[in-house]
Amino acid sequence: MKLATYRDGSRDGQLVVVSRDLSTAHYATGTATRLQQVLDDWNFLSPQLQDLYETLNGGKARHAFAFDPSLCMAPLPRAYQWADGSAYLNHVELVRKARGAVVPESFYVDPLMYQGGSDDLLGPHDRAVFASMGWGIDFEAEVAVITGDVATGATPEDALECIRLLMLANDWSLRELIPAELAKGFGFLQSKPSTAFSPVAVTPDELGAAWQGGRVHLTLRSTWNGRPVGLCEAGAEMSFHFGQLIAHLAKTRRVRAGSIVGSGTVSNQDWSHGYSCIAERRAIETIESGAPVTAFMQFGDTIRIEMLGLDGQSVFGAIEQTVTPAG
Amino acid sequence: MKLATYRDGSRDGQLVVVSRDLSTAHYATGTATRLQQVLDDWNFLSPQLQDLYETLNGGKARHAFAFDPSLCMAPLPRAYQWADGSAYLNHVELVRKARGAVVPESFYVDPLMYQGGSDDLLGPHDRAVFASMGWGIDFEAEVAVITGDVATGATPEDALECIRLLMLANDWSLRELIPAELAKGFGFLQSKPSTAFSPVAVTPDELGAAWQGGRVHLTLRSTWNGRPVGLCEAGAEMSFHFGQLIAHLAKTRRVRAGSIVGSGTVSNQDWSHGYSCIAERRAIETIESGAPVTAFMQFGDTIRIEMLGLDGQSVFGAIEQTVTPAG
Repeated sequence: MKLATYRDGSRDGQLVVVSRDLSTAHYATGTATRLQQVLDDWNFLSPQLQDLYETLNGGKARHAFAFDPSLCMAPLPRAYQWADGSAYLNHVELVRKARGAVVPESFYVDPLMYQGGSDDLLGPHDRAVFASMGWGIDFEAEVAVITGDVATGATPEDALECIRLLMLANDWSLRELIPAELAKGFGFLQSKPSTAFSPVAVTPDELGAAWQGGRVHLTLRSTWNGRPVGLCEAGAEMSFHFGQLIAHLAKTRRVRAGSIVGSGTVSNQDWSHGYSCIAERRAIETIESGAPVTAFMQFGDTIRIEMLGLDGQSVFGAIEQTVTPAG
Repeated sequence: MKLATYRDGSRDGQLVVVSRDLSTAHYATGTATRLQQVLDDWNFLSPQLQDLYETLNGGKARHAFAFDPSLCMAPLPRAYQWADGSAYLNHVELVRKARGAVVPESFYVDPLMYQGGSDDLLGPHDRAVFASMGWGIDFEAEVAVITGDVATGATPEDALECIRLLMLANDWSLRELIPAELAKGFGFLQSKPSTAFSPVAVTPDELGAAWQGGRVHLTLRSTWNGRPVGLCEAGAEMSFHFGQLIAHLAKTRRVRAGSIVGSGTVSNQDWSHGYSCIAERRAIETIESGAPVTAFMQFGDTIRIEMLGLDGQSVFGAIEQTVTPAG
């Protein structure tokens, strides 16, 4: 099934069930008003939403209305956790190669992951507001999952079973703030502002055969100012699958329902697929010609991130944001 | 006023108002069932709780009962954000000096802060469960605040006005996992398991004259296995006050109601005050004699963290935890 959160003036919005083709929606009132409620009590509430979803797909839901992704908040407008992996090692290799550094051996067995802020997640059409273009504004197109409860020390296989929903994410990054912040040694804080998410979150079964081995075997399309810049395969080159990423997070503590875990920037070794973040393009330019050529995003720039299913239809709806000056 | 969250089998528990002397409590039902609700709508709901608090203090609340801190969850059992500063530079200096490193100049003007996990916060009496003593189990006694909504780019003075509540925190750290994790460059994840909080959260006015300049001018007492090991002054040597810490967090994004911001390990230059984490004791031993002597915590060890007010009474109640093996 497909779920979204409609803006209603409240902090958590209103849960809606969305039809498979993203054409219609129906309030989930009666079952739950907020997505977190459903995640808190998944086994009891999700079958009720699944029933409504099937009725909606059959065109029989009595109070269905046209689905408008511009009215969506993030599926979880605020979450109790957002932890983002860096599962596409090609991305890590490229960025390091460009600055003359090597990838430590451990990175091939031990996932890289950072704890992100989750108190203010952006909807798919929310403006991306920044005070300065000098911060090095960059998009990062990713796949993300929402978990149920995961026990401490869960195996990757156990963790896979705890995946409730999938989404797309735009993990905004402020590239010019990153070097100084990471040099302090405590990870990202100011250099990773609020992340945006796709209009709908979907259960894994919606991906059909494209959901395999904890990976989404589909193409992630990134379109910058109307120009396609990335058609990256999200499956084959994901070095750690989502079960491994969640298990990494759960090594020393429980992971509770509603936690969001990201894949990191989707990236392919074959450069002809393009890129899912500008930093990677600039790394390639540096490797090829000694210096980056492509500038980071400017005020007014747009970014669209989308993924089509095996049937050619949009799975999650599109993230479509405009970079906007503060004030 | 003083607020706590009673365990009731639910994920968020039940909000209770606690008397100033921590002797009695009263369910906040009628106003709110969960603390996050109050934070979401502070100006409307907090005066109602303040009325109940005054009635309770006057001994006139009709359904008051004896307050039992062992029934408390964390005031926010799960939060949308937990960001922990490192505001006592003496702690940073000691730990670095012990390993022969210097403190970068920037640390004196730019706060060190990490984004922590907040999906599963521990109550004051919850066992601290770990799979291995080899992880280097350490407590960290801190002061923390809960914020209201803070705008992007808020000044430290603006941010101070957004502080709703104060608590104590025990920011559990797995010292032997930290070096390898920080070497990866993305900050803490596995090495900072779930943090515990004091039984009650209090509004700043409860501190009276001890709340000054965004700092708590009181002594933080840490008692390890029944032996007092730290009597550290939390006020004078806090290099960045809470307004500065919150403003640091809000530089590039909004900070939303219910965000928890920590002070970092409370630490004094005068070593006779003792320590608020074992790592600091070990750093002093290393500086004095070339090697650490004090071992990290063992299974069965207890830690008690408390702070007395200017009137000699416990402000927040005590964190009292036992280190427990998993399984």
